[in-house]
Amino acid sequence: MVLVTNARLTFNSIPDGHLKPGDLVHDTSNKIDPDTVPLNGGILLKLIVLSPDPFMRTLMNSDGEPPYDLGEPINGFAVAFVVRSEVSTIKPGTHIHTFLPYQNYVVFPNADLLASLPNEAGIPWTAYVGAAGMPGQTAYMGWKEYAKAKKGDVAFMSGAAGPVGSFVVQLAKRDGVKVIASAGSDSKLKFLKELGADVVFNYKTTSLSEVLKKEGPIDIFWDNVGGETLDAALYAANLGARFIECGMIGGYNTGNVGVKNLYHLVTKSISMHGFIVTTLWPKYLEDFYKEVPKLIADGEIKHSEVVYKGFQGVEKALEDMFNGVNAGKLVAVLGDD
Amino acid sequence: MVLVTNARLTFNSIPDGHLKPGDLVHDTSNKIDPDTVPLNGGILLKLIVLSPDPFMRTLMNSDGEPPYDLGEPINGFAVAFVVRSEVSTIKPGTHIHTFLPYQNYVVFPNADLLASLPNEAGIPWTAYVGAAGMPGQTAYMGWKEYAKAKKGDVAFMSGAAGPVGSFVVQLAKRDGVKVIASAGSDSKLKFLKELGADVVFNYKTTSLSEVLKKEGPIDIFWDNVGGETLDAALYAANLGARFIECGMIGGYNTGNVGVKNLYHLVTKSISMHGFIVTTLWPKYLEDFYKEVPKLIADGEIKHSEVVYKGFQGVEKALEDMFNGVNAGKLVAVLGDD
Repeated sequence: MVLVTNARLTFNSIPDGHLKPGDLVHDTSNKIDPDTVPLNGGILLKLIVLSPDPFMRTLMNSDGEPPYDLGEPINGFAVAFVVRSEVSTIKPGTHIHTFLPYQNYVVFPNADLLASLPNEAGIPWTAYVGAAGMPGQTAYMGWKEYAKAKKGDVAFMSGAAGPVGSFVVQLAKRDGVKVIASAGSDSKLKFLKELGADVVFNYKTTSLSEVLKKEGPIDIFWDNVGGETLDAALYAANLGARFIECGMIGGYNTGNVGVKNLYHLVTKSISMHGFIVTTLWPKYLEDFYKEVPKLIADGEIKHSEVVYKGFQGVEKALEDMFNGVNAGKLVAVLGDD
Repeated sequence: MVLVTNARLTFNSIPDGHLKPGDLVHDTSNKIDPDTVPLNGGILLKLIVLSPDPFMRTLMNSDGEPPYDLGEPINGFAVAFVVRSEVSTIKPGTHIHTFLPYQNYVVFPNADLLASLPNEAGIPWTAYVGAAGMPGQTAYMGWKEYAKAKKGDVAFMSGAAGPVGSFVVQLAKRDGVKVIASAGSDSKLKFLKELGADVVFNYKTTSLSEVLKKEGPIDIFWDNVGGETLDAALYAANLGARFIECGMIGGYNTGNVGVKNLYHLVTKSISMHGFIVTTLWPKYLEDFYKEVPKLIADGEIKHSEVVYKGFQGVEKALEDMFNGVNAGKLVAVLGDD
């Protein structure tokens, strides 16, 4: 019997505004024996890739649905290695992508609905929390379900250099859509140009309203930001526009900004779709795993990732994410700590 | 040659907040000879029923789309009698329902796309600007297109005693939906109960949030109001809820109230549909005229109307509408003035 540390990233305090050191704690007090821990018909997972994502911030509020429990590990998407298995369809040595508590080892009791990632395309495991994971699914499924893109449509993506936005930019270009994309730094704008965006601008230095006035009206708005950006998009929308509400990162830390131009929904027959990607899984997940890893392996869909180390890397990545430091998907890779 | 007065209701000044006397003017200076006025291949209409509607207020702002022209008659829906016709499919003596300038007589040059109302159901002409007109179309088509109602769903209607809301309440009940309806007076609540609403409350004296907490969560929200009501509905929405944005009367006079709870669109996979009823005509108009006048004649769909007299009646009706004085559809009937 060999006990090893089962380190965890626990939720220590509800952040007051931005996430601060101490709100999450790297707790190394727990031990586990991977060889003997009872599985009760389930599987034993060792987490190898963690996925810091914007929605996590909403679960840190007391009215999050469901909020994280204080003192318990936070949950998020992850790729994990199957150490042991009592489920016939899941072999030890394969990999699983699902929503997990952030700790080294997890006993997952009801694993019958999980499936190992085949990864026939041979892309890195980190991609399975990015372009081939939840952000990629969000882009792929949200675009397919709601964009109703026609060749020649004009689309605007806010917060476009993130893992979802940068995928959506490429889907839009593949559909023959003119893409206007905003981000907050020159390096992000360069990245968006490489992805094929037609018009890119820095929202910190350029008037969104003027860009949309010149390059719009817009038929599709992929919104990662909400607030004033959404207001400007409502104002610049074409008749019958589709708005896809993917996230409102602008409001996660600072409370919710009031949106004032919603009456354009009525005057312009706009449809606005919020969505949680899991509700679209039944319709699209099989196609997604058939198509997307291969598109990534072939370089047909480009993606960018920034790799952080360890549980502390999750904290740092979340901090960087809300400060808009990096383009692409932020991931945290666990070693043997 | 007999000249008669062709009175008009002209747009005189952009209202500062609520519509005030003098913003619209009853102008009797124009004359017309109905017997000899050239039709140039069109038809001559005499307006008999005018339709004061909330959207008119938005066209009185300088950024209305399109705004009313100062000094010109305002436009709105109306039922008109065909006095003369040079269009083979439109017979004199029949009636037309369309969007018209508010003056006694209108020469309508390109009338080939218009059709006379058959009125086989024999309902009053006033109904053709109400339950059998644009408000009824809005209710019928918006509900069919967007509500995706299932038996046992819970729906909330704000501003429910108006001509659209009161129709929607009945459509929801016909679909087996539990209906929560709000209005601003006891007589309106009584009317809503008669229409079959399960839960009615006065939004002026009862906390909306508490009602929705007790009777919700809601699967469908039919919104005639916007603003804080929309915020409360977002908070009380069920996963996958459908929001139908029919109007935001709360903001028409007073500027737009910021909506703060839009992030629930994302967290609850809500779809929110604004719409202009004319965009749904191609899909539903034929069915509408086949079904609805008969449902009204048979008492299967109840409606309530308040009749005002003359062009001044339009002004008074608009004023009363924004003050929430009456339930049902407000109409103005023109005599021979």
